[in-house]
Amino acid sequence: MLSLKHLPVSSFNENLAYLHKDCVAYKVDDINALTKIEIHGGVKTVYAFLQVVDDAKLVKPTEIALNNEAFEQINLPEGANISISLSTPPPSLASVKRKIAGNILSSGEYSSIINDITARRYSNMDIASFLVASGSFMSAPEVLALTEALVGDNVFHWDNEGIVVDHHCLGGVPGNKTDIIITAIVGAYGLPMPKTSARSLTSCAGVADTMSVLANVDLDDRTFRSLVKENRAAIACYDGLNIAEASKLISSVERQIGLIQQEHIASSILAIKLAAGVTHLLIDIPVGPKSRIKSTNEAMRLRKLIEYVGDMLSMEIDVVITDGSEPIGNGVGAVLEARDVMKVLRNKEDAPQDLLEKSLFLAGRLLEFDPKLRGGQGYHVAKEILTSGRALEVMNRIIHAQGKAPQPQLGHLTRDIISNVSGVVEAIDNSRINKIGVWAGAGQYPGAGLDLLKKVGDPVEQGETLYRIHSCNSTDFAFANSVVDGYTGYEISGRQSNY
Amino acid sequence: MLSLKHLPVSSFNENLAYLHKDCVAYKVDDINALTKIEIHGGVKTVYAFLQVVDDAKLVKPTEIALNNEAFEQINLPEGANISISLSTPPPSLASVKRKIAGNILSSGEYSSIINDITARRYSNMDIASFLVASGSFMSAPEVLALTEALVGDNVFHWDNEGIVVDHHCLGGVPGNKTDIIITAIVGAYGLPMPKTSARSLTSCAGVADTMSVLANVDLDDRTFRSLVKENRAAIACYDGLNIAEASKLISSVERQIGLIQQEHIASSILAIKLAAGVTHLLIDIPVGPKSRIKSTNEAMRLRKLIEYVGDMLSMEIDVVITDGSEPIGNGVGAVLEARDVMKVLRNKEDAPQDLLEKSLFLAGRLLEFDPKLRGGQGYHVAKEILTSGRALEVMNRIIHAQGKAPQPQLGHLTRDIISNVSGVVEAIDNSRINKIGVWAGAGQYPGAGLDLLKKVGDPVEQGETLYRIHSCNSTDFAFANSVVDGYTGYEISGRQSNY
Repeated sequence: MLSLKHLPVSSFNENLAYLHKDCVAYKVDDINALTKIEIHGGVKTVYAFLQVVDDAKLVKPTEIALNNEAFEQINLPEGANISISLSTPPPSLASVKRKIAGNILSSGEYSSIINDITARRYSNMDIASFLVASGSFMSAPEVLALTEALVGDNVFHWDNEGIVVDHHCLGGVPGNKTDIIITAIVGAYGLPMPKTSARSLTSCAGVADTMSVLANVDLDDRTFRSLVKENRAAIACYDGLNIAEASKLISSVERQIGLIQQEHIASSILAIKLAAGVTHLLIDIPVGPKSRIKSTNEAMRLRKLIEYVGDMLSMEIDVVITDGSEPIGNGVGAVLEARDVMKVLRNKEDAPQDLLEKSLFLAGRLLEFDPKLRGGQGYHVAKEILTSGRALEVMNRIIHAQGKAPQPQLGHLTRDIISNVSGVVEAIDNSRINKIGVWAGAGQYPGAGLDLLKKVGDPVEQGETLYRIHSCNSTDFAFANSVVDGYTGYEISGRQSNY
Repeated sequence: MLSLKHLPVSSFNENLAYLHKDCVAYKVDDINALTKIEIHGGVKTVYAFLQVVDDAKLVKPTEIALNNEAFEQINLPEGANISISLSTPPPSLASVKRKIAGNILSSGEYSSIINDITARRYSNMDIASFLVASGSFMSAPEVLALTEALVGDNVFHWDNEGIVVDHHCLGGVPGNKTDIIITAIVGAYGLPMPKTSARSLTSCAGVADTMSVLANVDLDDRTFRSLVKENRAAIACYDGLNIAEASKLISSVERQIGLIQQEHIASSILAIKLAAGVTHLLIDIPVGPKSRIKSTNEAMRLRKLIEYVGDMLSMEIDVVITDGSEPIGNGVGAVLEARDVMKVLRNKEDAPQDLLEKSLFLAGRLLEFDPKLRGGQGYHVAKEILTSGRALEVMNRIIHAQGKAPQPQLGHLTRDIISNVSGVVEAIDNSRINKIGVWAGAGQYPGAGLDLLKKVGDPVEQGETLYRIHSCNSTDFAFANSVVDGYTGYEISGRQSNY
C-alpha cells in the first residue's frame, strides 16, 4: 500500500502518477515498456502515466503522488491508502488498430473507444492514434456512431420546451462573432437558447473568449440551466459543463497535434449540442479560399454529412453556406470583437455592417425554426428586435445574470500597418490575418489582436492605415512585428475605387 | 530570464518543462492551446512540453524546472539563465498531414520528419500521428527514404574490414535466443560482428535482456567499437549507443501505443545496422500461425521489401524464412533463456536441440558471407566451432571483456502447469506463451518466465508437468495464476506417441 500525495502540477488533460524509483510497492527501475498504471483506492479505478522520481522530497518511496488531473479524479484525501497495478491496454485499442488497417468500425466499437477515452484509459498518444486512423476515412454511419458515442449519458432535458435552439459556426473566419448577437436576438424573441461555446483553439478568439470579456462564462451545469430557464438564453464555456467529456479530451489532443478533421468537428459539435438538449440547430459553414472550408463542393459534402447525422439522431438541422472570403467585423481578438458585438447591439452608427447583416440573417433563420413564424419573416423580426433595443436589453440581462466581467484592457503596444500604394482593397487573407493575430498574442491575451480599418472594396490612399496590431507584452509584439513585414495579408489593386 | 532547476523526474523520452502558474517571464494561466515551448540558453534550443505548477516549493515563479530528459539535453548547470518562447509547430508536421491524407512522401520529407524527431521537436503524440499515418500504407521507396533518414549522421566505420556482419530475428517466437550463440560462433570464425540488440519491447526478453544476465551490455560507442576490434564480437544494448536516435524515440512510442508495423520494423532494423557499420546482414523471419508473421506470403512480401531497401543502400542481405510454429529452446524469460544459451555453448547433453540446430543453421548462413567459404560449408564450419568449444571460449572472452554481470536469481515463486490428459503435444501457442510469461513478470524481471518441459511432438502422461511458471513477486504471480487456468497455450491430442 502507498500513501496518496497531491503534486499540484497541471498537465493539460493527462493523468500522471509519480513514484519514487525505490518505491516499496512496485519495482519501477526496470519499467521501460508498459508505463500506464491503475490506481486503486477510490470509487473508480484511475489510470495514469507513470513518472519516476529520484527525490524523496517530491515523493517518498512509500508514497504515490498524483498530478491535478489524476488527483481530482481519484477524489480521496492526501494520506489515503492506495494500491497500484500495471494497466493492460484497453481492449478497444484493438478497434483502433482495425481502423488503422482501413476497416469500417461498428457503432459498438465506437462506443467502446469513447467509453475508454472518458474513463481516461487512453493516453493522449492513444487518442492521437485514433484520430489519425479515423482521419483519413470515415463513412457516414461511422460519423453517426461516433457522434452517438460522444453524446454520452449526461444529457440536459428542458422539460416542456418543444424547441431548444443553438447556432454553431464552423469557423476559420477572423472576427466572426455573430453568435453573441444572435443569442440576444433569439432570447429576446423567446426561444430558449442554451449557447455552449468554446475557447479559442488555434484562432484569435473563440466565442467563449469574446463573451468572457463581457461576462463570466464559466458556469456549472445547474447555474447554466437555471439561467436559460430564467432568461431564455445563457452563454457558457463548454469546458466547464459536465457534458460530452470525451469530446473535450479529443479536442485537447486535436489542438495539440494540430489535426482538425471536418468529420471529427461535425460529430463533436453535434454531440455537444445534443448533450446540451438542443433540438434545432443552425450551422454556418463559411467558404473562402483562405478559410477553413475552401470550396462550395467541400462545404456541400460536409453539409450532407451533418444533415445525415442530424436526421438519424432526430435533430432538426439547418445548414447555411456563407461567404467566408474576408474577416467579418473589424475586431480580431476577444476585446476588439466584444467591442464590435456591443456596437451592433447598441445600434451604433459605426457598427460593422457585415457583422450586423450576417447576424440578422442567421438569427432570422433560427427564428424560423418556430412554426408560428411564416417563411421569410425571420430576418424582419430579428431586425425589429435588434433596432428596438430589445436584444441589447436581453444581452444586459444575460451579462448581469452570469456576472459582469472585469473588462480586460486592449493591448497597449500598437503598430499601424500602412498601405504603400493607393488603390482598392482587393482581398484580405483570412488565414494570414488569423496568424498575425495569434502571433500578436490573441487567443492567449484577450486584449491582443488586430483592428481592421479597411475591408474588401474600401479605397485606400498610400500611407493610410490598413489595420492596427495590439499586443499585451513585448515578446508577442516583437514576434508579430518581425513576421508581419513579409506579408500583411492585404492585397491592394492599383485601380481606383470608382473604376 | 528564468533560473534553471532540475526536477529529477524521468518521463520516458518526453521532455517536460515546469513553470509556476505565476511565472514572471511568461503568463501561463491562459495557456490552453499551444503547450510546447522552446528553451534557450544552452548550445541548442531544447523543446519541451509545459506543465504548470502551483507550488513554489517545486518551482518558484522565477524558475524553470526541467525533467531528466530535458535537463540532460540542455546541458547547463542549475541556476543558469534561461529564456523561453512558445514553440511553433515544426514545419515537417505538414508532411505528416499529407501522409494522413494518403499521399506518398518524398525522401526530403522523411528526412525533415526524422530530423525534427531527433531534435525532440515532435511530442510523443506527434510521433504517434506519424506512425499511424504511415502505418496503413507505405510504398517501397518510402520505406527506403525512411530508412535512410533514420540512419542519421553518426555511422560506425570499421576501417579495413571488408565484411562486417550481424543477424536480426524479427521475433515473436518465445525463447528464440540464437543471436548470442551465433555471435560467439561467428566471432570465433573471425568475422567482425558488432551485435546491437534491443531490450524486450512487449515480449518476455529481448536479446539485450538475456545477454545482460551474463554480461554488462550497456556499452558506450567507444567501448563497443574497441571491444569488437579486440575480440571480433561484442553484444551491446542498442539504447546505450549514440546511433539512430530517432529510431529509439519512435520505438518508445510504438511500444507505448502497441502499434508495431512491419514496414517500420524493417526500416528501423536496417537503419540501426547501417549506423553500426554492418555491411552483411542475415535476417530471420519466423513464420507460424501464432507468431508475429503468420503466413509465408506475408513473410515473402516483407522479404522483398527488406531486399529492396538493402539493395538500394548497398547492404548485402540474406533473408531466411524459418519455422516459427512453436517456441525455440525451453526457457522463456531472460534467466531461463541465458541458461539454454550456455547449455548449447557448453555442448551439454540436455541443451535444447532446436535452439542448437537453428543457431548452427543461421551461423552457417552468416559464415557464408565470407567469399572464401564454399556454398554449403557454413553449417559444418559452425558446428565444428561449436563442438570444439571455441565458441564457448569466445563467449567467455566477450563476457569477461564486457564485464560479468551479477547473475539475477530465477523467480522463486513457481507453479507447475499440469496436463489433464495423456497424449502428444500437438501445438504450442506462441502468442499465449509469450503473454503468460509477460503476466508472470518476464520482460520486467529477468528471473521471471516459463520453463517449457514439453515441446511439440513430446508424449505427455496425465499429471505430467507441461511447463513451470517462475515469478519474482506475488502480484505478478497471482496475476499469471489467475489467467493461466483459462488456456494454458498447449494443445494435446489424445493419440499415442507411437501412433
